[in-house]
Amino acid sequence: MKNSFGNAINISLFGESHGAGVGVLIDGIAPGIKVDEDFIAHQLTLRRPAGKISTARREPDNFVIQSGVFNGYTTGAPLCIFIPNTDARSSDYTPDLPRPSHADFTAREKYHGFEDYRGGGHFSGRITAALVAAGAIVIPALREMGIYIGTYIKQISNLGFSSLPHDKETLLAVAESDYGVINENDLSAITDIIERAAANGDSVGGKLETAVIGLPAGLGEPWFDGVESQIARAVFGIPAVKEISFGAEDISMLSGSQANDQFVLKDGKIITETNNSGGVQGGITNGMPVVFRTTVKATPSISKEQKTVNMATLEEVTLSVKGRHDPCIVPRARIVLDSVAALVIADMLTVRYGSDALTGK
Amino acid sequence: MKNSFGNAINISLFGESHGAGVGVLIDGIAPGIKVDEDFIAHQLTLRRPAGKISTARREPDNFVIQSGVFNGYTTGAPLCIFIPNTDARSSDYTPDLPRPSHADFTAREKYHGFEDYRGGGHFSGRITAALVAAGAIVIPALREMGIYIGTYIKQISNLGFSSLPHDKETLLAVAESDYGVINENDLSAITDIIERAAANGDSVGGKLETAVIGLPAGLGEPWFDGVESQIARAVFGIPAVKEISFGAEDISMLSGSQANDQFVLKDGKIITETNNSGGVQGGITNGMPVVFRTTVKATPSISKEQKTVNMATLEEVTLSVKGRHDPCIVPRARIVLDSVAALVIADMLTVRYGSDALTGK
Amino acid sequence: MKNSFGNAINISLFGESHGAGVGVLIDGIAPGIKVDEDFIAHQLTLRRPAGKISTARREPDNFVIQSGVFNGYTTGAPLCIFIPNTDARSSDYTPDLPRPSHADFTAREKYHGFEDYRGGGHFSGRITAALVAAGAIVIPALREMGIYIGTYIKQISNLGFSSLPHDKETLLAVAESDYGVINENDLSAITDIIERAAANGDSVGGKLETAVIGLPAGLGEPWFDGVESQIARAVFGIPAVKEISFGAEDISMLSGSQANDQFVLKDGKIITETNNSGGVQGGITNGMPVVFRTTVKATPSISKEQKTVNMATLEEVTLSVKGRHDPCIVPRARIVLDSVAALVIADMLTVRYGSDALTGK
Amino acid sequence: MKNSFGNAINISLFGESHGAGVGVLIDGIAPGIKVDEDFIAHQLTLRRPAGKISTARREPDNFVIQSGVFNGYTTGAPLCIFIPNTDARSSDYTPDLPRPSHADFTAREKYHGFEDYRGGGHFSGRITAALVAAGAIVIPALREMGIYIGTYIKQISNLGFSSLPHDKETLLAVAESDYGVINENDLSAITDIIERAAANGDSVGGKLETAVIGLPAGLGEPWFDGVESQIARAVFGIPAVKEISFGAEDISMLSGSQANDQFVLKDGKIITETNNSGGVQGGITNGMPVVFRTTVKATPSISKEQKTVNMATLEEVTLSVKGRHDPCIVPRARIVLDSVAALVIADMLTVRYGSDALTGK
Repeated sequence: MKNSFGNAINISLFGESHGAGVGVLIDGIAPGIKVDEDFIAHQLTLRRPAGKISTARREPDNFVIQSGVFNGYTTGAPLCIFIPNTDARSSDYTPDLPRPSHADFTAREKYHGFEDYRGGGHFSGRITAALVAAGAIVIPALREMGIYIGTYIKQISNLGFSSLPHDKETLLAVAESDYGVINENDLSAITDIIERAAANGDSVGGKLETAVIGLPAGLGEPWFDGVESQIARAVFGIPAVKEISFGAEDISMLSGSQANDQFVLKDGKIITETNNSGGVQGGITNGMPVVFRTTVKATPSISKEQKTVNMATLEEVTLSVKGRHDPCIVPRARIVLDSVAALVIADMLTVRYGSDALTGK
Repeated sequence: MKNSFGNAINISLFGESHGAGVGVLIDGIAPGIKVDEDFIAHQLTLRRPAGKISTARREPDNFVIQSGVFNGYTTGAPLCIFIPNTDARSSDYTPDLPRPSHADFTAREKYHGFEDYRGGGHFSGRITAALVAAGAIVIPALREMGIYIGTYIKQISNLGFSSLPHDKETLLAVAESDYGVINENDLSAITDIIERAAANGDSVGGKLETAVIGLPAGLGEPWFDGVESQIARAVFGIPAVKEISFGAEDISMLSGSQANDQFVLKDGKIITETNNSGGVQGGITNGMPVVFRTTVKATPSISKEQKTVNMATLEEVTLSVKGRHDPCIVPRARIVLDSVAALVIADMLTVRYGSDALTGK
Repeated sequence: MKNSFGNAINISLFGESHGAGVGVLIDGIAPGIKVDEDFIAHQLTLRRPAGKISTARREPDNFVIQSGVFNGYTTGAPLCIFIPNTDARSSDYTPDLPRPSHADFTAREKYHGFEDYRGGGHFSGRITAALVAAGAIVIPALREMGIYIGTYIKQISNLGFSSLPHDKETLLAVAESDYGVINENDLSAITDIIERAAANGDSVGGKLETAVIGLPAGLGEPWFDGVESQIARAVFGIPAVKEISFGAEDISMLSGSQANDQFVLKDGKIITETNNSGGVQGGITNGMPVVFRTTVKATPSISKEQKTVNMATLEEVTLSVKGRHDPCIVPRARIVLDSVAALVIADMLTVRYGSDALTGK
Repeated sequence: MKNSFGNAINISLFGESHGAGVGVLIDGIAPGIKVDEDFIAHQLTLRRPAGKISTARREPDNFVIQSGVFNGYTTGAPLCIFIPNTDARSSDYTPDLPRPSHADFTAREKYHGFEDYRGGGHFSGRITAALVAAGAIVIPALREMGIYIGTYIKQISNLGFSSLPHDKETLLAVAESDYGVINENDLSAITDIIERAAANGDSVGGKLETAVIGLPAGLGEPWFDGVESQIARAVFGIPAVKEISFGAEDISMLSGSQANDQFVLKDGKIITETNNSGGVQGGITNGMPVVFRTTVKATPSISKEQKTVNMATLEEVTLSVKGRHDPCIVPRARIVLDSVAALVIADMLTVRYGSDALTGK
């Protein structure tokens, strides 16, 4: 019913891959947040396909702030950002041949043929550009409060990578990196895997880990608006996400005595010795880093031949997805995850500390 | 801010582990659903600790329907079920010593010491009894519509089990089973692991898989009210859940050509040859079984000594969690997962087909 | 879909006139509010029919706090209050003969005959007892913050009364008065009108004016969550309310120069010289008293013969509503209005100042 | 927190009077509604100031559908309409001198000076253009279902007018009329009053009556999502609205036997003999016309000198509101009321009959 999340700061998306553009409406944002248009542009660029490990479609991602900003600051009124589409070749798409594991078939079932089928329409990953723009409004405000967010690649196909340290420097470095990777060797291994898949007309998926530091204890609500519930709800909105986990990897295998985070004192403050809970207990932040991993499946757009069924004639046919496709969206997804995490946290802070929470006014 | 989920059917929980009782308010339920009190009692019993693989605390789980049912049918008005607490020994709990990986510390941070700390208070797993009672209102209606839900154990500690077939007979059998297991050998292996942990004063976690069959295509909304978003949000409300995944296991390792669900015709209907997407594409059901796995961490209540900090005096101390504890809540969690899945699906059906969707009136 | 209002503090009602009881679930209330059970009982008594100007049905209105209160304070977790029904004679009601201007017919249309028709079921004014109990949780906290609410009778049938001064002493006096009247002559005139109507087997309606003082400027949201929108939405939930107006009476007849509230300085603070806007401009409080009038129509339950149609046989028949009826609910409605106003204000304060706004913690 | 209303179809507004433009996001609209851009333009024109009885500011009100429409039909995805501002002269506005009875002062209190103060910014009546555009999406679909809405002038200043008949022909005629008046003599009397006020540098207010016919019985929810609650909440969002009443005028003065709507049979269907309830009983439609009256206060922008206080220097000064002002917005408000009523009804139909309710698919 609603393309939105957030209790105090409500985020709604709109737009289509090959329509006029994509956009976001941010409702409930604090007044007085400095809006840095260069930072928005920068974040949008990190989401864009780039170089060999990404699709060749290059949208300049110009954006227009349609409301809610005045003299360079948020006004507190609803903030709408619109990103016009400029480089769409809609003739690549056939309405009656659903691409496997895309939303073409389910959109048809839900919308009875009225859906904008071009490039996935409203289900396209392109809509996440609007989510990134929204995130770019709140990320600087969170950083001013000492809250830092970074997402890095944990796995591409079957190749795994270590977690990064959860400190300000590292998280900022990875947030600013081109691919969510700060080690050159890792990047080169990742590039190899992705290019091999591309050469085969195939694609690969992977896992990302997101860490948030600097959060106060006491954010989130019991039960269905807990931190995990809110983050998971928003993250599963991102196309291709099929899994999310919080805290220690493989926590299902740990015994209680292994998994439990024991309390100790540090500089007169109660902290936990380990962070297997990922900064959340009972849905509420405990002041430790919030850590979660997101699995992004392989891009369903592949040039390899696949079976499908013509929805109009009910004939079985084969299909090779033409057009410009990204053989791995994992590196791009991380900036979307940063953005979603930032928006959920901004919302929880506003619920707890009131409508000026992000500015301290 | 809210202990509730659901757009058309809203589920809110209340209550404390050692207070007057726990309850649920169901708002927006269709009128005319036959209410089977025996079935509610039966479901509550499946959630109860039982036998050696569970804690010795045995609440009879009497329940009272406080509103919304008249002459044995739902009226359509808000339906409130209250489950009084009967067997609580609150002297077991100390307010100032937070149990590791429980919500004691975060509740204190959030509620400033006003929280009902006894047995976890509002954060206690006991509150899920109300969720199970709510599920027991809609599960029979869904079955009448041909929708069946079952959750079975996929893993306990480091021991894995095969998925069960996703057909009516199997799902009903597992839904009625005592522990979410229908193979006697598996049950005996599970019991061994759990009892070994218990003997060590420790606990174990695991994974559960839930399957839903009989769903029409076209349920769910794009983006943040997709099937995965809605289920994940509700499931992460359940205490001890740290992970959820949809569709194929280890989908992060599959290439696009492996993961994609190709379309074929069967009896004149378009289906997918595989179900790696877990019945959901673009957040919308495609008519295939909806399949997800939930990771439940090991019960944090263990009798082994652990470090903690006295929140009043800020002294580091050790703690052995006394009282009756369940060394593995995985078998009990599955009835909670069935209930949550049923409630989310009932909600999505009501959004799509209107306020009488569950009765066809 | 939902019997609830409030963004940060959510109020949901449940229950039926002749079922087990009526109740309220308060979600999002600050922890640490002192709960005064005597005050709750007192407020419930003011809502009860009393003496000659009200129905003879006398429910003792015992109540049970089922959750959310511990050691005499709110915990911050959902707070459920249940008020059991004790004195219901359900044989007075006939399912198939809808009483004119009651919800019997519309309930049948909506719920297809599954509604609890006894005494109006979930549509009964009795459910407002739960609303009054909820209000009694927050009213003392608001008073501690210097916010006072009072509702007084402005009109009964065609007899009008002056507004009261909007100061603390008067508002407290009227809030504590038995009938929302502090002048003995007025009370005697009101009693006369009501008793005359009762003697005729008829009933009368009227108007109430509610004033809230002590509010900070800046509460409320633009557009659909403005103060007027939020209060109106909640107030129209009260049975028999058909009209609400804010600010000056007969404002439709005033010119701009008459209606405008000009700004002046008082003690260095900007205030308005008049309060024709009723304390709200653009949906946002301006620091002046919030003032609104509510019209409550005459009780539809009258013993005079009326036409109705048997919904089962489709025969036109006549009906004289038997049972205990209140010839004028205006005096009782005012305590409901106080409660609703208090809850809406508590919500707006929490949105603005965060989850501890009501306690200053 | 949110500029939105609607449970199944969510309406959010954004934009400022003198910023880039104003817009609306419609979320949850049925797919397959034919979108008539000429009708949208026509409705926008009816909202525009025109001729002598309105301000001289003439915005062409070009609009852009930014999403949610494809090949001339709604897709079911979020539908965003943006109306760029073209003719704004912002130098007319002074940030520090709040205009009496405008939102300038309250916006400053809420947004700390970050608000876009030009022409009322986000609080401007100009934003209702977006609401009218949204209404123009659903009004044709409602008409196809036999649901007609019309709003006519009941009062201007102290001059009252009769209600119009609640039939299709009359409601369509008034909906298409330029000023919500179909009698030429009435129009001339109205014009006289307004022009006299304008000549004095003053303004006038009035009342409008809205009628909706063709609604099925059973729409709306008990308590806080009843028809009256939902309409009132949305209507009070419209700037300058201070009062709403449902059903018979002056119902506060009627006795129960006068106000009650007795049931009779007509063509085998149960109807009420009178419609004093305004088509709503217990918050639920009864199949009779839904009728409500809205009071719009006199435009606060007047050229007469008024007192105000400089918010920066805290000096008392006088102010004459310059610029182009409408001496009476009542005639224009009626198209906004039609739109709001249409959107609320479309929402309630969708809640009851599901996501394809507006198209019958």
